[in-house]
Amino acid sequence: MEPAAHPGDGTSIAELGESAVLARILPRLRAGDAALLGAGDDAAVVAAADGRIVVTTDLLVHGPDFRLAWSTPFELGWKAAATNLTDVAAMGARPTALVVAIAAPPATPVAVLEGFADGLREGLAALAPGAGVVGGDLSASSVLTIAVTAFGDLEGRAPVLRSGARVGDLVAHAGARGDAARGLALLFAEGTDAAGEPDAARAHDVRKRHPELVRAQLAPEPPVASGVVAALAGATAMLDVSDGLARDARRIAEASRIGIDFDAAALGPDVRVALAGAEDHGLLATFPAGARVPEPFEVIGRVVDAPGEILVDGMAAGADGWDPYSGWDGRAG
Amino acid sequence: MEPAAHPGDGTSIAELGESAVLARILPRLRAGDAALLGAGDDAAVVAAADGRIVVTTDLLVHGPDFRLAWSTPFELGWKAAATNLTDVAAMGARPTALVVAIAAPPATPVAVLEGFADGLREGLAALAPGAGVVGGDLSASSVLTIAVTAFGDLEGRAPVLRSGARVGDLVAHAGARGDAARGLALLFAEGTDAAGEPDAARAHDVRKRHPELVRAQLAPEPPVASGVVAALAGATAMLDVSDGLARDARRIAEASRIGIDFDAAALGPDVRVALAGAEDHGLLATFPAGARVPEPFEVIGRVVDAPGEILVDGMAAGADGWDPYSGWDGRAG
Repeated sequence: MEPAAHPGDGTSIAELGESAVLARILPRLRAGDAALLGAGDDAAVVAAADGRIVVTTDLLVHGPDFRLAWSTPFELGWKAAATNLTDVAAMGARPTALVVAIAAPPATPVAVLEGFADGLREGLAALAPGAGVVGGDLSASSVLTIAVTAFGDLEGRAPVLRSGARVGDLVAHAGARGDAARGLALLFAEGTDAAGEPDAARAHDVRKRHPELVRAQLAPEPPVASGVVAALAGATAMLDVSDGLARDARRIAEASRIGIDFDAAALGPDVRVALAGAEDHGLLATFPAGARVPEPFEVIGRVVDAPGEILVDGMAAGADGWDPYSGWDGRAG
Repeated sequence: MEPAAHPGDGTSIAELGESAVLARILPRLRAGDAALLGAGDDAAVVAAADGRIVVTTDLLVHGPDFRLAWSTPFELGWKAAATNLTDVAAMGARPTALVVAIAAPPATPVAVLEGFADGLREGLAALAPGAGVVGGDLSASSVLTIAVTAFGDLEGRAPVLRSGARVGDLVAHAGARGDAARGLALLFAEGTDAAGEPDAARAHDVRKRHPELVRAQLAPEPPVASGVVAALAGATAMLDVSDGLARDARRIAEASRIGIDFDAAALGPDVRVALAGAEDHGLLATFPAGARVPEPFEVIGRVVDAPGEILVDGMAAGADGWDPYSGWDGRAG
């Protein structure tokens, strides 16, 4: 649960200084079960009993990736954890640990970093129990920037790649389809002022009217544990749906040299939003024909012999999705 | 060797788009010997034969951490590799791999990222042969920001912590002492215009007059391989000297609850610069009294019974060093 707002004495990180800021943040985080040596030395030491470690890294930047007028610090921390944990899960691995580097404007209130740390901790506890934050870095920038690197354990299994889908496989999905995009569309339409700038008071109203959709965008709950479930059930390919179902399905189609034919009926009432909507962070996986597809995966299509193609009920679908350079309007908010 | 300047058609990353930019950058990088699965899937898979992995993360931000008027993209890539490799080395580990996330303004020429990738590759080849870049992320920001996470292999040894120094130990250092700070002071004094802004033409003149000192600041060559050498020789404590010898020695002193007494004569003609100068990325280590201190480490002091204290010839030394919040003047350049 998100705690009540911090008393927040308003002290900035510049006033407090790097060491004192770390002393306020680190106690809010758990190092987790895989931490053999946590924060405080030149580097951490993380258990990798499998003899291999899964690694993914991601940057979240104020402006293109989040708006401070819309997201609370807690939600930012939660989302930073959620998106990276899902990339680990998409390999069929169990997330074990994160490192987190933050660059913040010197005037940022320490309470912002405290809220961020709380969101990280609670996101990890909810989505990947046992995983923790083993280290990090604190730096200055005029733009709040968050870099997360996440680690996972394959527990003796082969990683589930994008390249393993075969003609005849079932195509299945776990998680939301379009909710995050609906939440973002609401925030852009109704959470901005007359000049189009993100506005905290208006976003608050949107949040009261559409709590689930706003939450799906700002603090998603992707099916992280389902990555291991899919691997154990024999998934032949898998990825994290971050840029939209059509665009990410095309990545499997290209890597596996197959086509994916979605069932329109399985995509819900708005096929376009289901296919184009970014940032749901569901898992898209393929399973051998006749396999018992495990919950919460739902079969939404099948693999066909049409290399690199995305179809809906047998007809070509447009590719839509997020490119950070063309998709960002230059605003921060 | 730094290659000749790129032909540089001036195409920006926004014009080219994320996928095409990656297609231009990835071939310039080596995944390295530890890469079981490199870039191109949701996550990489890195060998961790030891059953543990050393992990460190660091952000480099345009403004507080580098100036584009002073550093070439090649030097930025080299330095991003060098500083992170040294943190791995300071644990007594052998660096195996990096992941690199970059957030860049959409108008950034692709040639800047290509030069950065070349510097990363050459820095890795020179300082940690066999280590490579296993993955990354590309994002947009108004501020060029580089996040590196580096990995290392302890090869069955215990990590060398900051907390293991004992009274009577020898204090030894490998690497430059003050050169990086001298280079930076020259750039600030003579590589800026009348308004104090970093200036490329003036920096070029400084570079011609003082190539070694400028290079020590912009593309340092820290003694990365010496981390393993120190561990094998029985080092009791070690760290990367990034914030200045006095400030970093105090970290060992506090973690080990001892004092460090430097020999002024061993610190060279300018003791103040040797103690305060940041960013040399040498290795400071302690060895048992009577140990054979391995090259290139030089004995520069001893561990004394004065918990948390830094002394020079038995007298208290001031602590000086770099704090990103108080140390950055807000300029980028």
